[in-house]
Amino acid sequence: MYRAPVEEIAHTLKSVTGFGKALDAGRFGDLGEDLVDAILAEAGRFASDEIAPLNEIGDTEGAKLDDGVVTTPAGWKQLYRSWIDGGWNGLTGPEDFGGQGLPMLMSVAALEMWNSGSLAFGIGPTLTMGAVEALEKHASDELKAKYLEKLVTGEWMGTMNLTEPQAGSDLNALKARAEPVGDGTYRIFGQKIFITYGEHDFTDNIIHLVLARLPDAPAGTRGISLFLVPKFFVGDDGSLGARNDVFCSGLEHKLGIHASPTCTMIYGDGKFGDEPGAIGWLIGEENRGLACMFTMMNNARLAVGMQGVAVAETATQKAIAYAKERTQGRAPGFSGEGMSPIIQHPDVARMLMTMKALTQGARAICYSCAEALDMARLTEGDEAKAWSERASLITPIAKAFSTDIGMEVASLGVQVHGGMGFIEETGAARLLRDSRIAPIYEGTNGIQAIDLVTRKLPLSGGDTVARLIAEFKADAEAARADNSGALAGVADRLEAAIADLEAATAYMQAALAEGRQPDALTGATPYLRLFGLTATVALVARGVLADAQAPQAAARAALARFAAANFAPETAGLLAAATEGAASLKGAEAALA
Amino acid sequence: MYRAPVEEIAHTLKSVTGFGKALDAGRFGDLGEDLVDAILAEAGRFASDEIAPLNEIGDTEGAKLDDGVVTTPAGWKQLYRSWIDGGWNGLTGPEDFGGQGLPMLMSVAALEMWNSGSLAFGIGPTLTMGAVEALEKHASDELKAKYLEKLVTGEWMGTMNLTEPQAGSDLNALKARAEPVGDGTYRIFGQKIFITYGEHDFTDNIIHLVLARLPDAPAGTRGISLFLVPKFFVGDDGSLGARNDVFCSGLEHKLGIHASPTCTMIYGDGKFGDEPGAIGWLIGEENRGLACMFTMMNNARLAVGMQGVAVAETATQKAIAYAKERTQGRAPGFSGEGMSPIIQHPDVARMLMTMKALTQGARAICYSCAEALDMARLTEGDEAKAWSERASLITPIAKAFSTDIGMEVASLGVQVHGGMGFIEETGAARLLRDSRIAPIYEGTNGIQAIDLVTRKLPLSGGDTVARLIAEFKADAEAARADNSGALAGVADRLEAAIADLEAATAYMQAALAEGRQPDALTGATPYLRLFGLTATVALVARGVLADAQAPQAAARAALARFAAANFAPETAGLLAAATEGAASLKGAEAALA
Repeated sequence: MYRAPVEEIAHTLKSVTGFGKALDAGRFGDLGEDLVDAILAEAGRFASDEIAPLNEIGDTEGAKLDDGVVTTPAGWKQLYRSWIDGGWNGLTGPEDFGGQGLPMLMSVAALEMWNSGSLAFGIGPTLTMGAVEALEKHASDELKAKYLEKLVTGEWMGTMNLTEPQAGSDLNALKARAEPVGDGTYRIFGQKIFITYGEHDFTDNIIHLVLARLPDAPAGTRGISLFLVPKFFVGDDGSLGARNDVFCSGLEHKLGIHASPTCTMIYGDGKFGDEPGAIGWLIGEENRGLACMFTMMNNARLAVGMQGVAVAETATQKAIAYAKERTQGRAPGFSGEGMSPIIQHPDVARMLMTMKALTQGARAICYSCAEALDMARLTEGDEAKAWSERASLITPIAKAFSTDIGMEVASLGVQVHGGMGFIEETGAARLLRDSRIAPIYEGTNGIQAIDLVTRKLPLSGGDTVARLIAEFKADAEAARADNSGALAGVADRLEAAIADLEAATAYMQAALAEGRQPDALTGATPYLRLFGLTATVALVARGVLADAQAPQAAARAALARFAAANFAPETAGLLAAATEGAASLKGAEAALA
Repeated sequence: MYRAPVEEIAHTLKSVTGFGKALDAGRFGDLGEDLVDAILAEAGRFASDEIAPLNEIGDTEGAKLDDGVVTTPAGWKQLYRSWIDGGWNGLTGPEDFGGQGLPMLMSVAALEMWNSGSLAFGIGPTLTMGAVEALEKHASDELKAKYLEKLVTGEWMGTMNLTEPQAGSDLNALKARAEPVGDGTYRIFGQKIFITYGEHDFTDNIIHLVLARLPDAPAGTRGISLFLVPKFFVGDDGSLGARNDVFCSGLEHKLGIHASPTCTMIYGDGKFGDEPGAIGWLIGEENRGLACMFTMMNNARLAVGMQGVAVAETATQKAIAYAKERTQGRAPGFSGEGMSPIIQHPDVARMLMTMKALTQGARAICYSCAEALDMARLTEGDEAKAWSERASLITPIAKAFSTDIGMEVASLGVQVHGGMGFIEETGAARLLRDSRIAPIYEGTNGIQAIDLVTRKLPLSGGDTVARLIAEFKADAEAARADNSGALAGVADRLEAAIADLEAATAYMQAALAEGRQPDALTGATPYLRLFGLTATVALVARGVLADAQAPQAAARAALARFAAANFAPETAGLLAAATEGAASLKGAEAALA
């Protein structure tokens, strides 16, 4: 059973990112280390004791649809209620609307724990938080006054309605339409698919944010507007009125996260109300909906990255516990009676160290992204711009690398369990099933890689990525300067990996500058992986030196050496794959015919 | 829907392995190319038209247990009946007992196709074929006379009963016991778990091969004997008599291959017969059961390797079909109206090429293993020994590399489908679920890697592995000598990969010679991967030159170049990981505490 690794999370937050120093310097106002620790401990307790125990029933029962009504698994409604009663939904929400205004760093740490408890639970609030952010930044004061506080507290949940059958990664193809009523509202018509928590029994109302086209809107993504469409109309006194013309027509039968209802939503079918059309209110400007939606989406991408970290952590804990208990064979050097715990077999230990090191690397990458988001808010001018661009740069890596390793680690977890891993009751297979969605939703990992290469590497003429790489170099230098032997071999290997990252980065930048788009696009995925692995080696090493006297320092050092010895050498191959360019696919049309 | 790639299979059989030349030289007697082609075409038709359409219902209905009776999904019993009526079960079976005595090469090709149709179907006959082989090699003439023909034709199925709750990878811990009755039979007592097709409704009788200990048998694996335990007793006239004291007490609820009943089998519980004890007959000598079982197991390992190839092929076909149909965005250079088929996006094409190249590499590795098994039977003396050792060497690579890539390819297949990939009805997720067992059963892939390094590399003082690597070098030289440009860049990259393979091999051999077992064990898994990837690059290239005038040559060359550019560079990192030795795990105990 999952136990929140509060200590390691606190260490990563405070010592691998600059959060600890910023706290000491008073950058986060009244927030002090004691409060941070107390919040983490309580979040950890809630995730371990309240969420995790409901994950299995969530999977086996799943969400159910009956005549438009979605029922979540036994205990889940109460779980959500205790969770919002604990104030967790409003952790980072605006203080003016009942939120606690805490840093994103606290949010990602908590998100990690909720999702380790259950990915199917964690994804719901992620969307509400996205809706809060979009409303806060783009909605009118009237809309804010009516909806924001209840979304911040979690009394209502929010959803994100982008996808249509013909419009997934490509929102140009979006067809849902919005017709102005004349009174400032719009009638929305269309079908949306894959809507996470589009309908459920957690809350009395659900606030849908919906992308649709106005009449005569320009084609493509410049003709998309964002609307707020409540399930039930809300009176000026906050009371719930009539049902809006939107309903859930179907739930997907999915590989995993069964408790999370994935809905087909029908807008404007005439099922409710006097005349067809779901009534919506415009958020932000007409035809600027995509920009508003991206406010939600960027943070959702980091949140999905946290799902990768989260599932990896749970899988690792589970596999380690099993490997300590299960005995088979006699490991080299084993001097006990009978069979060894399988954790003593080198091949099993290699799997577990791989799992643990990838998890810690992805965690540190995601937390660094949250740090950049926080610092962008706390700083101004060039400094704010630099932090903001850093967050933009890291976001696709946080999303894609973390979710890729989430799946890899979950799969290794199954393998460590041997035959038991394939049996559903063991729970290892469920983690693999659950993990498989994260590389897909909120922009597939291929889209993330393309975003990284084509939109993020060029930021500030390449300075943004250069500054991040410079920090990895500083990590390598610090490792070299350390005389304790704890990081033996790390500096050389990290430096070699960084050299590969720089070479691949230069290749991508040149390809873009010279208009060789296909060369950049072809190698984007191996490039992102190269970036993620190099960051992993750097950040895991950084964690050792950041608190070299800690009782955990030896354990962290073993992980850092393992990462350097086993992940850093992969970068040479990734560099080759990333820089082969379009030549890699020459003749592919014939090969794939 | 799966269409058997008969042409590519025939090409790989005849031109990548030496089967074509051996056929021409009359090494396989009357068997000629026309008959080979006809059998492949008919097997392909059966797999595509009969098996594949029943895979989905197999998954959704699954096998069901009610009071000891197992019912397979709708249509499956009839499927099995048509399959044995087609003579497929006896393809390689001994001609004296109703088999067709065809080469193993034909068997693996057919196995690939059955398993592409359905892994849950393919695994059943695999065990029957193993039972046939064990009986043929080790059983008394009486047992052969009574059981062999019906197992060869498939009128009865066979099972393999090794695993017990405390004895999985480590059979030393086996507890099932056998008591001599005094009349040449034994009473068997014990519980076996994870017994594939241990109970079902396909056949009127089921012949269990069961490992158990005689009284006073030595401890460990030298005290294990193999017994034949029929579900129903068989009269001398072949008629079925009373029920033996064995039954299925439970079915596992698994991640995948739901139609394949995974049984807990109870022997000697007194449920059937006058007194407790399932009656069994000894196969081979007392206390030599493991050797007999290994006869089954080695070929079963290759057969499971074929499952990896099979699921990879199906997943690749499915993903390519989807990527041609689904349109999103505009790929660079796309000049059509509207959105591009996603196959034109470089990142999607990269995934598909990766899938296709890994599949073809694993196929060629497995077929090479079958070739070695066939040639070992057709040759004598040193030549036979060399072929036999080659089969031993390749078996763990065929099993582990193919099943690892089977899972990777199935997972990429989900990714290509985007959101639809996570929806069960699409079928891509089912392939991932099904594929996940193959790296586990018949010896986990970690066990395969250890077998490769510790038992196979030392064969004939290292000559066995050196000879195989020499053939890869010849492939590299042939690629260099080719002036057509079809294999541009392949020779250099393949040679670099081979150099890494040689260096890693030398490291492993030295570690073993110097008694540094932990060094060898720690790097075994990356070593096996290094071997598999190098073999993939060599064998895919070999396939191009073997039939350079074929209409498919350009497509094959594109795949060979892709493999060389993207897989060969991985070997440097794998060499580093494989040769870091036990140092890699220094401090792991603390890190995994």
